[in-house]
Amino acid sequence: MLEKVSSGRITVEQASQKLQHLPYEDLGFARVDHHRQVRRGFPEVIYCPGKTTEQIISIFAALAEKGGNILATRAQEHTFEALAESKKVPNAKYDALARTITLKQSPIEPSGTVIPILTAGTADLPVAAEAKVTAEIMGQRSEIICDVGVAGLHRLLGQLKKLRKANVIIVVAGMEGALASVVGGLVDCAVIAVPTSIGYGANLGGISALLSMLNSCASGVSVVNIDNGFSAAVSATLINRKIEAK
Amino acid sequence: MLEKVSSGRITVEQASQKLQHLPYEDLGFARVDHHRQVRRGFPEVIYCPGKTTEQIISIFAALAEKGGNILATRAQEHTFEALAESKKVPNAKYDALARTITLKQSPIEPSGTVIPILTAGTADLPVAAEAKVTAEIMGQRSEIICDVGVAGLHRLLGQLKKLRKANVIIVVAGMEGALASVVGGLVDCAVIAVPTSIGYGANLGGISALLSMLNSCASGVSVVNIDNGFSAAVSATLINRKIEAK
Amino acid sequence: MLEKVSSGRITVEQASQKLQHLPYEDLGFARVDHHRQVRRGFPEVIYCPGKTTEQIISIFAALAEKGGNILATRAQEHTFEALAESKKVPNAKYDALARTITLKQSPIEPSGTVIPILTAGTADLPVAAEAKVTAEIMGQRSEIICDVGVAGLHRLLGQLKKLRKANVIIVVAGMEGALASVVGGLVDCAVIAVPTSIGYGANLGGISALLSMLNSCASGVSVVNIDNGFSAAVSATLINRKIEAK
Amino acid sequence: MLEKVSSGRITVEQASQKLQHLPYEDLGFARVDHHRQVRRGFPEVIYCPGKTTEQIISIFAALAEKGGNILATRAQEHTFEALAESKKVPNAKYDALARTITLKQSPIEPSGTVIPILTAGTADLPVAAEAKVTAEIMGQRSEIICDVGVAGLHRLLGQLKKLRKANVIIVVAGMEGALASVVGGLVDCAVIAVPTSIGYGANLGGISALLSMLNSCASGVSVVNIDNGFSAAVSATLINRKIEAK
Amino acid sequence: MLEKVSSGRITVEQASQKLQHLPYEDLGFARVDHHRQVRRGFPEVIYCPGKTTEQIISIFAALAEKGGNILATRAQEHTFEALAESKKVPNAKYDALARTITLKQSPIEPSGTVIPILTAGTADLPVAAEAKVTAEIMGQRSEIICDVGVAGLHRLLGQLKKLRKANVIIVVAGMEGALASVVGGLVDCAVIAVPTSIGYGANLGGISALLSMLNSCASGVSVVNIDNGFSAAVSATLINRKIEAK
Amino acid sequence: MLEKVSSGRITVEQASQKLQHLPYEDLGFARVDHHRQVRRGFPEVIYCPGKTTEQIISIFAALAEKGGNILATRAQEHTFEALAESKKVPNAKYDALARTITLKQSPIEPSGTVIPILTAGTADLPVAAEAKVTAEIMGQRSEIICDVGVAGLHRLLGQLKKLRKANVIIVVAGMEGALASVVGGLVDCAVIAVPTSIGYGANLGGISALLSMLNSCASGVSVVNIDNGFSAAVSATLINRKIEAK
Amino acid sequence: MLEKVSSGRITVEQASQKLQHLPYEDLGFARVDHHRQVRRGFPEVIYCPGKTTEQIISIFAALAEKGGNILATRAQEHTFEALAESKKVPNAKYDALARTITLKQSPIEPSGTVIPILTAGTADLPVAAEAKVTAEIMGQRSEIICDVGVAGLHRLLGQLKKLRKANVIIVVAGMEGALASVVGGLVDCAVIAVPTSIGYGANLGGISALLSMLNSCASGVSVVNIDNGFSAAVSATLINRKIEAK
Amino acid sequence: MLEKVSSGRITVEQASQKLQHLPYEDLGFARVDHHRQVRRGFPEVIYCPGKTTEQIISIFAALAEKGGNILATRAQEHTFEALAESKKVPNAKYDALARTITLKQSPIEPSGTVIPILTAGTADLPVAAEAKVTAEIMGQRSEIICDVGVAGLHRLLGQLKKLRKANVIIVVAGMEGALASVVGGLVDCAVIAVPTSIGYGANLGGISALLSMLNSCASGVSVVNIDNGFSAAVSATLINRKIEAK
Repeated sequence: MLEKVSSGRITVEQASQKLQHLPYEDLGFARVDHHRQVRRGFPEVIYCPGKTTEQIISIFAALAEKGGNILATRAQEHTFEALAESKKVPNAKYDALARTITLKQSPIEPSGTVIPILTAGTADLPVAAEAKVTAEIMGQRSEIICDVGVAGLHRLLGQLKKLRKANVIIVVAGMEGALASVVGGLVDCAVIAVPTSIGYGANLGGISALLSMLNSCASGVSVVNIDNGFSAAVSATLINRKIEAK
Repeated sequence: MLEKVSSGRITVEQASQKLQHLPYEDLGFARVDHHRQVRRGFPEVIYCPGKTTEQIISIFAALAEKGGNILATRAQEHTFEALAESKKVPNAKYDALARTITLKQSPIEPSGTVIPILTAGTADLPVAAEAKVTAEIMGQRSEIICDVGVAGLHRLLGQLKKLRKANVIIVVAGMEGALASVVGGLVDCAVIAVPTSIGYGANLGGISALLSMLNSCASGVSVVNIDNGFSAAVSATLINRKIEAK
Repeated sequence: MLEKVSSGRITVEQASQKLQHLPYEDLGFARVDHHRQVRRGFPEVIYCPGKTTEQIISIFAALAEKGGNILATRAQEHTFEALAESKKVPNAKYDALARTITLKQSPIEPSGTVIPILTAGTADLPVAAEAKVTAEIMGQRSEIICDVGVAGLHRLLGQLKKLRKANVIIVVAGMEGALASVVGGLVDCAVIAVPTSIGYGANLGGISALLSMLNSCASGVSVVNIDNGFSAAVSATLINRKIEAK
Repeated sequence: MLEKVSSGRITVEQASQKLQHLPYEDLGFARVDHHRQVRRGFPEVIYCPGKTTEQIISIFAALAEKGGNILATRAQEHTFEALAESKKVPNAKYDALARTITLKQSPIEPSGTVIPILTAGTADLPVAAEAKVTAEIMGQRSEIICDVGVAGLHRLLGQLKKLRKANVIIVVAGMEGALASVVGGLVDCAVIAVPTSIGYGANLGGISALLSMLNSCASGVSVVNIDNGFSAAVSATLINRKIEAK
Repeated sequence: MLEKVSSGRITVEQASQKLQHLPYEDLGFARVDHHRQVRRGFPEVIYCPGKTTEQIISIFAALAEKGGNILATRAQEHTFEALAESKKVPNAKYDALARTITLKQSPIEPSGTVIPILTAGTADLPVAAEAKVTAEIMGQRSEIICDVGVAGLHRLLGQLKKLRKANVIIVVAGMEGALASVVGGLVDCAVIAVPTSIGYGANLGGISALLSMLNSCASGVSVVNIDNGFSAAVSATLINRKIEAK
Repeated sequence: MLEKVSSGRITVEQASQKLQHLPYEDLGFARVDHHRQVRRGFPEVIYCPGKTTEQIISIFAALAEKGGNILATRAQEHTFEALAESKKVPNAKYDALARTITLKQSPIEPSGTVIPILTAGTADLPVAAEAKVTAEIMGQRSEIICDVGVAGLHRLLGQLKKLRKANVIIVVAGMEGALASVVGGLVDCAVIAVPTSIGYGANLGGISALLSMLNSCASGVSVVNIDNGFSAAVSATLINRKIEAK
Repeated sequence: MLEKVSSGRITVEQASQKLQHLPYEDLGFARVDHHRQVRRGFPEVIYCPGKTTEQIISIFAALAEKGGNILATRAQEHTFEALAESKKVPNAKYDALARTITLKQSPIEPSGTVIPILTAGTADLPVAAEAKVTAEIMGQRSEIICDVGVAGLHRLLGQLKKLRKANVIIVVAGMEGALASVVGGLVDCAVIAVPTSIGYGANLGGISALLSMLNSCASGVSVVNIDNGFSAAVSATLINRKIEAK
Repeated sequence: MLEKVSSGRITVEQASQKLQHLPYEDLGFARVDHHRQVRRGFPEVIYCPGKTTEQIISIFAALAEKGGNILATRAQEHTFEALAESKKVPNAKYDALARTITLKQSPIEPSGTVIPILTAGTADLPVAAEAKVTAEIMGQRSEIICDVGVAGLHRLLGQLKKLRKANVIIVVAGMEGALASVVGGLVDCAVIAVPTSIGYGANLGGISALLSMLNSCASGVSVVNIDNGFSAAVSATLINRKIEAK
């Protein structure tokens, strides 16, 4: 019968059941997805650009009330100061390099293994730091290995043993982004590449590194958006959780 | 001492040892990397565009002689016919949908779990097929779930149970590529997204879907190059191998 | 209570009920959405590029069996010929200008009012024809008013009375696409603009007209994809149906 | 006879009569189109960027003198303050979120039905607010439904009943803009999509969302310029007026 | 009084009179603008791409019947052959280099002065030829000076006297299009620059030359579309006519 | 003989004579081209961006010493103030709208005819003002006709008589730039179009208007760089000088 | 004195003498620059695209008559066949891989040192071959080292000694073009990088590799146009000549 | 034997030896490559953008301690002031035009020959100055020849003798970048072209000049990134060193 297509797999009705108990909270200007922790394994994260300071504080407070851990990305220092002054979440912390506000109030069990976060240069550090903070709040341990760009190949080769042991690797690079390809060719795990907007004129705000990484001659490299250390960390953590879960 | 930077990690000399025993074979117009199977877990793959038929046959034959399994991607039918006529690798097979030539001569142990390969529409099938063939030759089982684009959301929801069980998911979509975001928001594993060049005018040969996927509002989505089913399969397989290895 | 957010509006459970009775049919390479006629007011339409002739025939036949009317867009002549030879849908018709295959087997009630489809030049006719065929199978009457581009303004002004009476207008134009702005400034109804890929070098495959229309100095103009007469017709028809329904 | 082409439609002379009684007022640096209310159903709107504060005040005052209602978009706060200090239009109001100045001095009859304005995230609110203010001054009631992006699909499904009742829907989304496609696939009315410039690196100032929406796999979606809530509201209001007029 | 804004210039009514006697002929798929010769000084020109052969023949014949001279641009050879076979315009001529069909049946008075059409290289000749044919049918004499690109500056300097005497100059160049700037710096008349799509990879179908010419460091250079010899000739001829008219 | 190619035209030697008496003055950081007035009919113009205030003052003073008239474009107010304080050119004037500094110290004979400079909107005025100031210092009279964009066509038609009398017309427009095409279709003289960077999101800093104007369906339109009122004025003035010279 | 600016350097008159004895030959459609061998050290090269077969043969023959060596690039096979049939230059040779026609009739003295031409993959060979043929006709010896892309770093390291000895190196690479950066970081000579159009979807016809190379984190890398092996060879040869000349 | 591919060239093992003695120093946020002077002939250079002032000072100090000469590029004035206040490198100098910090503490032997650095305009000076400072610290003498753009060709011709004597030439130009082609056509040495971001609207931040230079009709021109005077100087110096070494 057409109405109930299902042979050998879940029916549409059953699928819909999955969605109908999902809770959220309506703040008027935001619908806070309290179920995300259950469904995806990490809480709703507050992406700050485009939101007013008042909105950020309200969403942060609404999330904090539920007792979970919270991450706000791309937060400006004055936003954090306003949050601090509001005294609504006294334990929130600001990381100036990563531009994040975090609140850790429920226990986080650290992962067994460490994800290497490589950067091609020192200027890529803020993006790597965002990745590190993101991983950390998800319980994923990580280590930043900074300034191993391909212009001095021996600096990278000194890290080879560490890379060969990794379950998944994050590579952060601007300019021509060649580091992703070179690392990809040396290891047997997936590489999550983050292009950055660092570089002279025709890097086009990171487009150059983005295209490089998408065109990597080494397979096994997948790419997230420019400067998006957050998304790289989520992808890498989801992967490593599945590995450690086994 | 400066010469030997190493505190707490492998020395540069040790790192260099890693590289010095790696074999390759020089055909004049190609350096066949016989060591790739060991180093990365899969053989060198022949990307056909830009190579002459003669070159493809020679590389294929050189690889075949070593006894391993072989994959050639983006192969045109007439290339396969020339290979068949050459009688150098009589057991090679052509898959017209995936545009691949494969040779399976050494045993492949199938993976324990299956990777879902979703497509938004029927026109995305060739890219999904390339992913499937690639996974298969690496021993990774997969299942194509076709035509579950977001214009008819119930078609996707009927697959939810299967998706929720997956270790990693490949999403293949053209046009606006929204499927990657919607799937990403529903699952707790990494999503490897493949934009395709399918669509009306301003899809710009896949750039539209590529940008969509890079800008996914759901985190945990990473992206490979346009129409690059091969690379998505390698990333997904490397991830799943680590998971099954534990 | 958090679980059931609903004050003043439908609950999530109720919303989910909407989705769970939606039927589709799995052909392996396609999931035919038989419910679309009910949900959106028009059947699933077959977009031919990227599909094999065999797939198109199968989907067409599966849809035809349900007794509804069918539209396939961007169909090449040889695809129609193969369909005709298959004898599966003997009453299907091909329109060479619009590049469509249609099957009309259930009664179509014509709309009370006519939608004007303007073209800037003769070369824009195929896109206008696709719009006309699409409207027709949805029961929407339309009239193509061809070659009224702004280089000879008097040709457009001769149509002013007709335009002023319209409920909604489709404007199809390539090159600089100025017609959309000029028409938009003269009428009190919505204008759906379709940029076309017609023009010399820097029209960039229609990007020039697309940008023009998006930047229209006359408000009330919204835009569909390049050469996408189909989508313009769907938008315009959905609008006019609501108008006539009152 | 060639001179007077007319069979079955208005002559060119008659068309020209339409244009010859249209009034405007020449301020030297602007030609205020006092006839627009009659011709298009809404007054000339002042787009502020690129105009000096003095020019904006003069145009605003010239329009105010005619007794109609006025809208200025993309107005900076200091512009409004200068206008207030000038005491020329004491009843003008500033909306900081929408960045609009409005003057309501002639009666506005509210529409019978409400247009839903959906946003994918909180950061899209300013664009939605511009749309809401625009609709309002045209007499169109609207409701902003905020933060229903596809990363948490259940938030959108909770609004389904409301969406299914709408005559036309405005969807405001940045990042990958997938919300337009998902909504488009669920309803039987036209969707006016507004891409926003919200997002990480490769959203390219809104180009990513713009391309997504133009390439929507759900038909019935048409698109306005990036961040252009004003234009979306005009389109939607013109449509709904025709519907309510019947 | 507002209705009749006019102080010191023509009233709107008077302006409208200008438009109301303009004739055109409706062929169904085209509106032939027989008045263009009077209004703009040259007949409607048939731009062939996107038109069917049948349409081109019909438009050509309709224009021919009025006795004027006719130009069709970007005409393929087989289009001309079909026109010839139709025997409708036996005196039409085809120019394979310029890809034009012309019919000269009413007397053309040649201009007193000659417009130089420079090309940077031999490969730019087809575009120059299109310009020459266009000028000729408008009665404008011209001379192609071929292959004087800046890589061999002495070739250009040999033409200096001729250039210094010109009323207006057309410069046709691909690759980096530097010729327009160099010529512009040497003369005291306007230069109309035509970028061509000639060149290696990153000329991007003429975009490189187009941008060069728009950015010319020598002022007095204005630019037409890529490969658009036709438009350059019209601009140059309109300019020279005014000069000779005095 | 090869060495002296010349049949029917000036020899290379003669051509070289033209160049060898051209004077310039080396300031170290600039080579002031005192011969430009003779060769091209207007003095070297100072383009300010990228130059230090000190450099601008030095070049301005060096030019002033020769007794000619001077124009500096894109000058910021503080640059003019520094120039004024230096007391080196006490009669220099600043035009804040046009962002120009001018010095008139040698007699300028005004042209017999006036060039119309049309703008689509009020926001295009600064670019039009730059054109007007440029024309003026070259002795060319001009009139700005502001805010005649195509959204209110009657405003443009009220100017038709004036346009029909012009020798050449400058059209300044942002957004979709349609004004150039509409004007081009109404007149028999050349149109110099200037795209401006005015508009919502996808005007891409003027690229949208630029592409529109390059793709104008009305021939006889040539285009200068975005916001480059200066270059449009030079082109138009060079044209009109030739016309008046006859 | 202003007229004769020269302190410490050549006068303008002297400079002009340099240009006035330069010979060329006018074929009507081409001006053959017979002096180029003297001025630049290599003959005028025929770039075939956009030229008719007849034009190519004529230019080739005109150059051949002078007794020098000749190179035609991007020549299609049928062009060579037509040249051969014309019997005008019986000793011309075709290289199908490099797509060049060459004629060697005057002695070429081979360089003392060899320039390495590296390719990342086999598919880059045609571009490398064009470089090799170009170098050869200029007397420059070269060696193609094929398929040393960074995905298998040991293949490149095996060539390190050879690279360290080079005076200048050409690197030809498509996809992400990382090879240029890696090589650049290992050597002490200049690297001329040639991006190729090889790769999956978002390599954008070579733009990806081009941007990579321009953004190389290793300095000392300069770049020529996409697929332009010819230009790389000219640059490298001019450099090496100066080195060997000392 | 496969393991040790080497016939006629260095073995992979030998190659690896090259890399294993390369020293660097790990500062945590940077790996200072002290070996670069040996390997590439110039020290690691500090690219300042994206680094914090603290990081720059630390890296600068770490490099200074080794006794070599140091260059920091794109340094803002306040960075230098902080460095000066730190008193860690009292002899460091700031060049405001070039935006560089330099420390010269080990002897620099000046080159025998001088590299000309040409600029098209005065606004290109900062980029030329960066090139000059870079060359100087590498011991390469250079001379800036400013403002010789092609709009006044005689200014360039006055430098011809100097150009003809050069071993390699750097050309710095914005706008349409034509200077590179014109110079390239006049000399017999390699030209390193640097596009700059100087110019009106559609120069697109230097993309226009970049494309021009890549498409140069004169061969022998290679290009570095936009505004990258540093990289041009390194390339030119590496070339000239090889020349002088012979």
